[in-house]
Amino acid sequence: MPDHLRRRLRRPRSGRLEAGGASALAPRTVEVRQSGFVAEPHGRAPDLDWARWGRPERREHLSAALVELLQQALGLRGPAPAVVEAADVQVPASRLTPPAHHDLAAVVGAVHVKDDPAARLSRAAGRSTADLLGMRAGTLDGVPDAVVLPGSHDEVQRLLTVCTAHRIAVVPFGGGTSVVGGVAARAGEHAAVVALDVRRLGALVSLDRESGLATLQTGLRAPEAEALLGVEGFTLGHFPQSYEYASLGGFAATRSAGQASSGYGRFDEMVVALRVATPAGSLRVGRVVASAAGPDLRQLFLGSEGALGVITELTLRVRPEPEVVVDEAWAFADFAAGVAALRKLAVAGEPVTVTRLSDEAETWVNSQLAPASPGAPAAAHGAEGCRAVIAHEGPADLVEARGRLVAALLQRAGGRRLAQPRAGEWRAVRFRAPYLRDALLDAGVFVETLETAGSWSQLARLRDGVTTAVVGALTTAGRPPVIMCHVSHVYRTGASLYFTVVCRIGPRPREAWAAAKRAAGDAIIAAGGTITHHHGVGTEHLPWMAAEVGPLGLDVLRAVKTTLDPAGILNPGKLIPPLD
Amino acid sequence: MPDHLRRRLRRPRSGRLEAGGASALAPRTVEVRQSGFVAEPHGRAPDLDWARWGRPERREHLSAALVELLQQALGLRGPAPAVVEAADVQVPASRLTPPAHHDLAAVVGAVHVKDDPAARLSRAAGRSTADLLGMRAGTLDGVPDAVVLPGSHDEVQRLLTVCTAHRIAVVPFGGGTSVVGGVAARAGEHAAVVALDVRRLGALVSLDRESGLATLQTGLRAPEAEALLGVEGFTLGHFPQSYEYASLGGFAATRSAGQASSGYGRFDEMVVALRVATPAGSLRVGRVVASAAGPDLRQLFLGSEGALGVITELTLRVRPEPEVVVDEAWAFADFAAGVAALRKLAVAGEPVTVTRLSDEAETWVNSQLAPASPGAPAAAHGAEGCRAVIAHEGPADLVEARGRLVAALLQRAGGRRLAQPRAGEWRAVRFRAPYLRDALLDAGVFVETLETAGSWSQLARLRDGVTTAVVGALTTAGRPPVIMCHVSHVYRTGASLYFTVVCRIGPRPREAWAAAKRAAGDAIIAAGGTITHHHGVGTEHLPWMAAEVGPLGLDVLRAVKTTLDPAGILNPGKLIPPLD
Repeated sequence: MPDHLRRRLRRPRSGRLEAGGASALAPRTVEVRQSGFVAEPHGRAPDLDWARWGRPERREHLSAALVELLQQALGLRGPAPAVVEAADVQVPASRLTPPAHHDLAAVVGAVHVKDDPAARLSRAAGRSTADLLGMRAGTLDGVPDAVVLPGSHDEVQRLLTVCTAHRIAVVPFGGGTSVVGGVAARAGEHAAVVALDVRRLGALVSLDRESGLATLQTGLRAPEAEALLGVEGFTLGHFPQSYEYASLGGFAATRSAGQASSGYGRFDEMVVALRVATPAGSLRVGRVVASAAGPDLRQLFLGSEGALGVITELTLRVRPEPEVVVDEAWAFADFAAGVAALRKLAVAGEPVTVTRLSDEAETWVNSQLAPASPGAPAAAHGAEGCRAVIAHEGPADLVEARGRLVAALLQRAGGRRLAQPRAGEWRAVRFRAPYLRDALLDAGVFVETLETAGSWSQLARLRDGVTTAVVGALTTAGRPPVIMCHVSHVYRTGASLYFTVVCRIGPRPREAWAAAKRAAGDAIIAAGGTITHHHGVGTEHLPWMAAEVGPLGLDVLRAVKTTLDPAGILNPGKLIPPLD
Repeated sequence: MPDHLRRRLRRPRSGRLEAGGASALAPRTVEVRQSGFVAEPHGRAPDLDWARWGRPERREHLSAALVELLQQALGLRGPAPAVVEAADVQVPASRLTPPAHHDLAAVVGAVHVKDDPAARLSRAAGRSTADLLGMRAGTLDGVPDAVVLPGSHDEVQRLLTVCTAHRIAVVPFGGGTSVVGGVAARAGEHAAVVALDVRRLGALVSLDRESGLATLQTGLRAPEAEALLGVEGFTLGHFPQSYEYASLGGFAATRSAGQASSGYGRFDEMVVALRVATPAGSLRVGRVVASAAGPDLRQLFLGSEGALGVITELTLRVRPEPEVVVDEAWAFADFAAGVAALRKLAVAGEPVTVTRLSDEAETWVNSQLAPASPGAPAAAHGAEGCRAVIAHEGPADLVEARGRLVAALLQRAGGRRLAQPRAGEWRAVRFRAPYLRDALLDAGVFVETLETAGSWSQLARLRDGVTTAVVGALTTAGRPPVIMCHVSHVYRTGASLYFTVVCRIGPRPREAWAAAKRAAGDAIIAAGGTITHHHGVGTEHLPWMAAEVGPLGLDVLRAVKTTLDPAGILNPGKLIPPLD
């Protein structure tokens, strides 16, 4: 085997909970208990911190030089405001009535109905930059009146009956990593709102080794699911940036796409069957991987964002853990050349696990942030062209053969393969961005992302349209931004575009960003893109749902909602715009 | 290039209408006119004959020896009944009222509202064996009161308004190849029923070469679509057995899967966007290949079988015409060994265009039916084990590399590659089966197919269950059958099973088959399979829809139907079972 193939560090058979191949993650040792078909992690991954992404020991610290550079480039003035800690936030009194509390407790047990301020605050918001700014300022759009933690599908089903009877809105809550307002605590027209936290639904229910099918409960965080599957020699292969905290239920409810989507597929493609609790009753949809028995009802619950039901179990296509993992770094003259090469690769249909191309700006920033490599002096902006990451995973012989075919194809398309030290950089920092955002916010720098997808022929126009819109809006708001873009999900007919926007926080940053987001959304629709390729709708993308699916499409969604949730208690104000 | 790679006979650039690489099809020369983005075939493929599959010149004739063999094996007695010709069928008077006729004609023009017996008979039924037996006997379950042929999406939309006003049921009609009763002329509770034939919707509306996206009207027959795309150097790659006559609209409405589904995907996977006319108005669903903007509404119309709307346009993922096509024949010791090898191939994820495995019985029958090869004496039943077809299509270098990897994998799994003459046999006869069925019916032999899919771990049980059920039912009905089975669609987690059942026609054959089908359907559900993998629901599979999607799933489908078709005029009695 050529030495550019390196064996993957296999996860230990004892079922320790570690992120799949992510050396940047501190190992967490969570023993896995197995009894019959049901396996549960003994301990569980921690919750998100207040007003921040990850745990304190993983926080990023910016160098003084970088802070100075940012201050100059973005016109920062003065220190960022201090963070209001959770204990200092004014939390309104719970609106949950004693009879409602009693009935909820009768389903899940009193210990699993939490209405103390700390529990309610921890389930009040997701992790968009606007959410973080709200938390940092101690001002939240809403706080749930209680957090309810069911322990089984049947308890979820009974909770929905209780909440319907008491006119309580229900926000299904997984990892809490939504960046589109998906878990915002909105009561709508109801008397109160509870967060229905699926955390306790944390079992591997069954595993069909021959078919490569695992049935998992939806409260499992992604690393927990990988640990349970890793013990059995399988992986899901789903590694979005939210990987450390996001839940399987959230992946399904938002049609998540991971960094390895080129090889493992989008999350929605992995779902063979779902079990869903709705106020109208329970369903199991999906019998086998492909069927012609009418409309595919799985596709109504995938992307349903808690507005049509609570997904409690997923039967997922899983893969054998890869024998080898190979990361390659490639350079292209510019973004257009890189996109053209990726298109050729996609059309050829040769399997690739990760396909990721940064534009000139992101390439330069990444090289500034990367640990200094010996003999690799920092290049000037644009001098390096554009970088791409190509990764292959699988059996050694196939990975080697595919690597050769893909390399030949990329070389013919003008690509240049970079030396090995560069190749590992991406994997080492792949889950680092949310920690960096916290550090940047501490330094007074606003950073947020947005994403879309379009066909190959639309992509340049889509990128230009979004860039112009965001630069215009933020410049008008007195904070000219730096914008970076990358392609991270590639299809035969098109690709995603993911934008990272950086500017000074300045006064009223949430309003400034909302204006930029409005301009970007309009530009996306005008250029024929989708308003979201993998973040979901939530509250953020609601204004474009009519453009996305049309008025009659909305009527169809409303009819489905009315059938499953006649009282409209499920996640009001998300996904489906109200009738005018 | 090794000599086992043979260049595909490319379709001529002048746009002649020929089947994609199917040498068995007589070439039809249909000139293609192009104006701007809209291309239409000048002439059009012919309609299906009365009570038969194809055109007279393609009819199959059984040898005297084969007929004698069949007579002995199946216990045939006496000649088959003569076929009642269309002109001799008693057709009931049309129930279309003069005002209704007037209003329909006002939309499409009088010439496109046909209520003569010949036109009505030609749109009365699909092509299941039960349909053919009904036609042959001159007894049909129903005949449409008229055939209406709209020329545009807007005309379809206006027709639905007229039909709603006049209480006329509408059966959307494409190629008429349904084998599940999907186009049966049922008025339901309505005053009359018309066949809405999309035949005139026959244009290539637009082609985005860079993105590989073609927008095509749904009345195009598959060979017509291939001819239009072939002029531009593209192919859809969708080759089901109904290829010669089936329409694009039918493929979408029934979730068709073609013989090359392993490489090109199922038809539902090719659909990026649809345009649909419904009584409640028109929709366009699908903006780009993948989106997280809520539930995927495309998946409601894919598989909707004309019950939720009339699909008038499809934006489809198309591929460059393959540079080379390689067919390989493989042998395995038995069906279980072949299935195990296909599973390994699917899990490895190496691209293959066609993956097809016949069981012992089908292998033997195919070798009896194949043109005699020099030096290949007929083997005894079972002596050849099981045959598989593996085909690769694409750029020469990739096809060669993939061929080597796949061959190594199949050899390790116990496969033995057969000499070249065997390899081409399948492609030469790939669309022959429906012609053979006609010849067998002429000889008094009943032949019908049914299909399902399941996960790899279910497959043996699924096959046994169906076989036992069908043999039991037909033996009870006094006609012990021969059953053959093949796998033709392979996924990482499972595969399809396709059964061909042969017995004597005997008395009341439709009733005998209905009993066998009931037993098979129950066995499929009991074994965890899907009631249909690629034929659709129609009337035939209606009894199992509740088992397939659950009672609440049916409520969801009914709610969608009520929203889009409040009067219930669209294809009544199909897809969605009536409320008890």
